[in-house]
Amino acid sequence: MLDLSQDAGALTAAIVDVESVSGDEKALADLVEEALRALPYLSVDRSGETVVARTSLGRAERVLIAGHLDTVPVAANLPSRVDGGRLYGCGTTDMKAGVAVALKLAAALPAPNRDVTYVFYDCEEVEAERNGLNRVARDHPEWLAADFAVLMEPTDGVIEGGCQGTLRAEVHVAGKRAHSARSWFGVNAIHGIEPVLARLNAYQARLPVVDGLEYHEGLNAVGVRGGVAGNVIPDSCVVTVNYRFAPDLTIEQAREHVREVFDGFEVSFTDAAPGARPGLTDPVAAAFTAAVGGEPRAKLGWTDVARFSALGVPAVNYGPGDPNLAHQQGEYVSLEKIADSERAMLNWLT
Amino acid sequence: MLDLSQDAGALTAAIVDVESVSGDEKALADLVEEALRALPYLSVDRSGETVVARTSLGRAERVLIAGHLDTVPVAANLPSRVDGGRLYGCGTTDMKAGVAVALKLAAALPAPNRDVTYVFYDCEEVEAERNGLNRVARDHPEWLAADFAVLMEPTDGVIEGGCQGTLRAEVHVAGKRAHSARSWFGVNAIHGIEPVLARLNAYQARLPVVDGLEYHEGLNAVGVRGGVAGNVIPDSCVVTVNYRFAPDLTIEQAREHVREVFDGFEVSFTDAAPGARPGLTDPVAAAFTAAVGGEPRAKLGWTDVARFSALGVPAVNYGPGDPNLAHQQGEYVSLEKIADSERAMLNWLT
Repeated sequence: MLDLSQDAGALTAAIVDVESVSGDEKALADLVEEALRALPYLSVDRSGETVVARTSLGRAERVLIAGHLDTVPVAANLPSRVDGGRLYGCGTTDMKAGVAVALKLAAALPAPNRDVTYVFYDCEEVEAERNGLNRVARDHPEWLAADFAVLMEPTDGVIEGGCQGTLRAEVHVAGKRAHSARSWFGVNAIHGIEPVLARLNAYQARLPVVDGLEYHEGLNAVGVRGGVAGNVIPDSCVVTVNYRFAPDLTIEQAREHVREVFDGFEVSFTDAAPGARPGLTDPVAAAFTAAVGGEPRAKLGWTDVARFSALGVPAVNYGPGDPNLAHQQGEYVSLEKIADSERAMLNWLT
Repeated sequence: MLDLSQDAGALTAAIVDVESVSGDEKALADLVEEALRALPYLSVDRSGETVVARTSLGRAERVLIAGHLDTVPVAANLPSRVDGGRLYGCGTTDMKAGVAVALKLAAALPAPNRDVTYVFYDCEEVEAERNGLNRVARDHPEWLAADFAVLMEPTDGVIEGGCQGTLRAEVHVAGKRAHSARSWFGVNAIHGIEPVLARLNAYQARLPVVDGLEYHEGLNAVGVRGGVAGNVIPDSCVVTVNYRFAPDLTIEQAREHVREVFDGFEVSFTDAAPGARPGLTDPVAAAFTAAVGGEPRAKLGWTDVARFSALGVPAVNYGPGDPNLAHQQGEYVSLEKIADSERAMLNWLT
């Protein structure tokens, strides 16, 4: 049984030591469910390895606090260890510290000033179709109903608003095959991508301000493939590009931009995920910002806030971990930051 | 069982329809071996998918007639079809028409005026170390002993002297990995190949005259690879180039030229094969030239004549296919040229 009365740092260590690589979250989800079911003022639901718990106090506002239970693969960095005010180990920063803070709030707040929905979900670190939040949004959207959501992803204790969208496209260049001993009878498709790369090298990324936060876009080749055989002038070369776009663009507008950049070339689109506007001007978000303090900044990476945004729930990222340490072997979290984050959230909800 | 009594065009179609992409020649090699073993005046040897058959009449001169059994990858151009006096399909011109002529000679000539060694070999279209002729030259050099060799590569019925050399090199560009959401922390290696492609696009190929024949060089990208994952700025990109060089350069001189072209980039060399000077002044070559007729020209493609050259056997290219159609999706061979070639070779050997 998880002891929710221990301090948030010790609780983080306890759940870090329950290994929960994506797809293998059951043991931890069971412990979380058991601990939450022991709190009589919460109603608890479960879908797969996702656990949802809610107060039902009839408050005017409902807020949602979410964290994922899974981690990237362990890299010889378990069990956790404390050293110089830091807790080291797989998942410390991304994002079991945030999960521990949410569990502490659940245990400490039988009567928060807003109704609260706690969501602990699985498979955030892998393909979108396995994502637990994605599954609950599809199967039980009513569980996620809220006026505002805080996703406790690592942000170093700073409120990060919205997130950038992402899409991938393939730029195709055709040529004409020929034997490479008589190359002048062919048209070399690999040589033909020179202008595609020239446009990428000349590309000026936008830094738009959206709802008061500055974003930073990027358009990059993430793959290139071409070639038939060592003695053949290739008739096809494909450059795969990834466009990270600010949340003032829809996916369709982002596609249009990519089409314009590669005007004259054949462009096809593969996967895409929309951005989310920061929405910090929303009164419910403003109340959170005021309670937590600090200067909000733009979230550049794509996160599950976009899923809340798509459900009509304004959402921000806010958590005690350092995002630059995520997915690294030497991952750690500052114990002081965990305590700060717990204090700020309690301040907001009481 | 291959029917060697059908006309050479029909025999070409029959062997074209036995798919034999490099590495997958067994079915065709088995058919060829079986057909040759049925001819009592030939002694037959086999090494891997290479078949060698010889007359042993004690003639003053031994000539060797060779062809490769493999083709480049099929490009939706099988089975073969006849249209307007042309046979279309993968391997028609390069070089199953030549193989068919050699098989017809084997069947038609129990007592040629010169002893003949027929060689049908595998893996000509891929890396030199897989080449069947290369393997036989190493393991059974005595099988290849001859005073003169005719390699029935496509030459459009013209004697082609010598051959250009070929080498492959990899041009490496390094970068620095980063998450593509924060691409400015990385260095994109794919973007970094733009100047490599610019040099290739600006390249001016040499057209040197060697022993009276004009050659035509070429330097081309034949492959490109780069990319880690769809959300990672790639830290490595490699362009594979193929340099076809005239026989006035040694392999080392050709490498030096490639190093100069890509000065400032990391260049590594993979396989290389030397060119062969035309050597048409040799008396035994002159006898063949007189029997077949026509005006000899330079061979641009690398061919295994260079291997014979290295074994001290003067050799020429001569075959019914059109070399300009080799490795093209619309590859075909003229049925009339096949018959002409068969007639000229019979004329030489009777």
